[in-house]
Amino acid sequence: MQRLDIGQKILSENERYAQENSRLLAEKRLVCYNLISSPGSGKTSLLVRTIQALTNQVRIGVIEGDIQTDLDARRIRTTGAPAIQINTQGACHLSAVQVNGALHQLPLDQLDLVFIENVGNLVCPGAFELGEHGKIVVLSVAEGDDKPAKYPGIFAKSRAMVINKVDLLHSGAVDFSVDRAQQDACRLNPQLAIFRVSARTGEGLDPWCQWLKGQAVSVRA
Amino acid sequence: MQRLDIGQKILSENERYAQENSRLLAEKRLVCYNLISSPGSGKTSLLVRTIQALTNQVRIGVIEGDIQTDLDARRIRTTGAPAIQINTQGACHLSAVQVNGALHQLPLDQLDLVFIENVGNLVCPGAFELGEHGKIVVLSVAEGDDKPAKYPGIFAKSRAMVINKVDLLHSGAVDFSVDRAQQDACRLNPQLAIFRVSARTGEGLDPWCQWLKGQAVSVRA
Repeated sequence: MQRLDIGQKILSENERYAQENSRLLAEKRLVCYNLISSPGSGKTSLLVRTIQALTNQVRIGVIEGDIQTDLDARRIRTTGAPAIQINTQGACHLSAVQVNGALHQLPLDQLDLVFIENVGNLVCPGAFELGEHGKIVVLSVAEGDDKPAKYPGIFAKSRAMVINKVDLLHSGAVDFSVDRAQQDACRLNPQLAIFRVSARTGEGLDPWCQWLKGQAVSVRA
Repeated sequence: MQRLDIGQKILSENERYAQENSRLLAEKRLVCYNLISSPGSGKTSLLVRTIQALTNQVRIGVIEGDIQTDLDARRIRTTGAPAIQINTQGACHLSAVQVNGALHQLPLDQLDLVFIENVGNLVCPGAFELGEHGKIVVLSVAEGDDKPAKYPGIFAKSRAMVINKVDLLHSGAVDFSVDRAQQDACRLNPQLAIFRVSARTGEGLDPWCQWLKGQAVSVRA
């Protein structure tokens, strides 16, 4: 019983900040997506490409979550977009209070869309609401097509799935059935929007960017 | 204070079972390694190849940890090796009590080496001792060479690092500096044994298998 009580207290502190983040995003009429994936699925590369493709169309800011280093925020800033780095110092996910601090460091009045790049972890980040509009799961084809079946939680909760590194499929360098991954993910989540991209070559970026643009516009409307 | 007390109680229950596992492994003169990595680094493929390569030399049993499905245990059993599947039902790591139950289901008297394949997660599993002899971190080149710097904990704690999917390097399909990954990992852990393999093509398996054989022999000696 004692364990349950304390679990609830921690959750409710996170929820309180998540609600505050949600309120702040609504006030600023910003859309905010929480990117979740395994380490190395290519979230940062996807963001760099997306920011470049949407220059002069959607003004993007980024909150970077990592256990250590500011490598990712520095990569984002090369595009000219503002990026705030959070180091969790060992923690396996971002919390709403950390995101709250970072939101207040971003120039929110000059943005349309905020991406939160969570710590690379396909399990824990999905359990912590940050006040975002939705979660987006990124899956690299190098990870294998069995991941939706084996890690169902985040695929069930996400608004969109980005299948990344599709350039590796053409060369036959990896064994990955796009059909299997999509079918398993859609079984868990029939409303899931699915995009197939290569952040490395730029393939497939256009539908993804158009969808994001639509999301940003819908919040401004 | 209350939170600290309870944290200690949970840890000590895990530690108690970890000690019991360690005692059981010593009694049976078995070596046991805990494989930790991101989802999709190729742990199961590496095990399948390793079991095949060490047939008639080292008798291997496997404990498979996954959130859902028994896909991995079934893949291991195609080799003829015994495999016990644990489903964590959402939990992001294996616990020592789960491993204890699985050890008692394996034919320990007929084995030399037990692999525990942990839940795919580069963060949380490293914090829970299972009674194993050591941890082995697997890193796929598709994940990027910045992972030791960004997720230092598990690289600092592991006895060995297996850099997998090196076949992707030859085709230029991924950008990954083996030197950078190795240097960052060795800075964290100068004693780390490092192997470069492709579980897909079989490249580099021999030094890895010889090392494992040496580990199994040293426990029997």
